[in-house]
Amino acid sequence: MQLLKERIIRDGKIGEGNILKVDSFLNHQMDIALFNEIGREFKRRFANCDVNKILTIESSGIGIACITAQFFDCPVVFAKKHRTLNIFGDVYTAKVESYTHKEVYDVTVSKAFLGPQDRILIIDDFLAKGNALNGLLQIIEQAGAKVEGIGIVVEKAFQEGGDLIRSQGIRVESLARVKALSVENGVSFVEDDC
Amino acid sequence: MQLLKERIIRDGKIGEGNILKVDSFLNHQMDIALFNEIGREFKRRFANCDVNKILTIESSGIGIACITAQFFDCPVVFAKKHRTLNIFGDVYTAKVESYTHKEVYDVTVSKAFLGPQDRILIIDDFLAKGNALNGLLQIIEQAGAKVEGIGIVVEKAFQEGGDLIRSQGIRVESLARVKALSVENGVSFVEDDC
Repeated sequence: MQLLKERIIRDGKIGEGNILKVDSFLNHQMDIALFNEIGREFKRRFANCDVNKILTIESSGIGIACITAQFFDCPVVFAKKHRTLNIFGDVYTAKVESYTHKEVYDVTVSKAFLGPQDRILIIDDFLAKGNALNGLLQIIEQAGAKVEGIGIVVEKAFQEGGDLIRSQGIRVESLARVKALSVENGVSFVEDDC
Repeated sequence: MQLLKERIIRDGKIGEGNILKVDSFLNHQMDIALFNEIGREFKRRFANCDVNKILTIESSGIGIACITAQFFDCPVVFAKKHRTLNIFGDVYTAKVESYTHKEVYDVTVSKAFLGPQDRILIIDDFLAKGNALNGLLQIIEQAGAKVEGIGIVVEKAFQEGGDLIRSQGIRVESLARVKALSVENGVSFVEDDC
C-alpha cells in the first residue's frame, strides 16, 4: 500500500534494536483518515472472504479493527491481555510471550463472543515474531471458528512470524512489509505489493 | 440517547456490586453500527466546539474514540496505562487509582502529541468515580491544551465522578446516565436526555 509506505518513510522513526516507531499516526496518535484507507485496502484484499467478525488484541489493534469493520459491516471482538491470569467466567485463553516486554501474558476472549458459526478476519497493527497472532489463532481454534485471513498494517518481513503463519496455510495480507531497518540506512520494503 | 438506553436494557447484564456489564456491544465485543450512532450523537452535542483532537485511554475507549473522530475529522490520541512507571522519552504523566482493580497505575501521553495548540474532546466508555478522567485532565493541563468537553457513553450518575468534574466548569455529555442499578430491579436512567 503505497500511501502507507510513504507515510512510514516520512513519519516513522527508527530506534536502536530495530524498533520502528510509528506512534505519530498508527499506535499512540492515530490518523483516522489513514485508518479509513487501510480499512478500504483490507476490504479490497479480502473482498472474496465471507467475514462475519473481526478479532484483534488490545490495545493498538482496536482502532484499526473498528474502522476496518465498517467496510465489512461486522462487529469487532478484542482479546484482552492479562499479566496474571485471574479469570472469572467462561473464556478461551492462550499464553503469549511479549517480544517488547520480555514477559509471558495471558490472552482471553469470552466464550459468548466466539463460536463455531464465526468466520474471522484477524486485524493487528504489527507482525514480527507472530506471538500475539499465534495466541489469537489458538483461541479461534478453541472456539471452533474459521480463520478467513489475517490483515496486518506493518510486517517486519525480516522476522519469522509471517512465514511461519503462512506455512500453516493461513492467508496473511500485510499492507507494508519491511525488508530491512537500521538507523543508518532507514527503512526499505519488500516489493511485493499490489 | 434512546437507542443506547434500549440496548443497555436489552443486552446489559448486572452483576453483584453494582457492576453493569455491557461487554456484548461496548467494551469486549463492539457493535460498530452502534458506535457510529454514538459518534454522530457526540458530534451533535459538541457541534459548536472547535475540537482538533480526541483524547481517550486504553483499552475500551479507543474504538468509540476512533469512530467518533470521523465525525470531527480529527486524529485520536490514546493515553497509555502502565502498572509500573518505566518511562523513557518525553511524556506527560498522571497517577490514576483503579476502582475495578484496586491499584494505582500511571497514565502517559507523549509530549509530541499534545500541546498548547490543542482543543481536546475527551471520549471514554464509562464514568463512575472519574479517576481516569481526572488523570486525563491533569495531562491536558500539563500540556497547556484546552478541554472542549468530555463525551461519555455510560455514566453511573449515582457515583460522584460526573458531578465533581462538572463542578469544575467542564462540560460532560453522557449518552446514558444510570440512576440506579441492582440485580433485583435492573437498570434505570436519569431522565435528562435530549
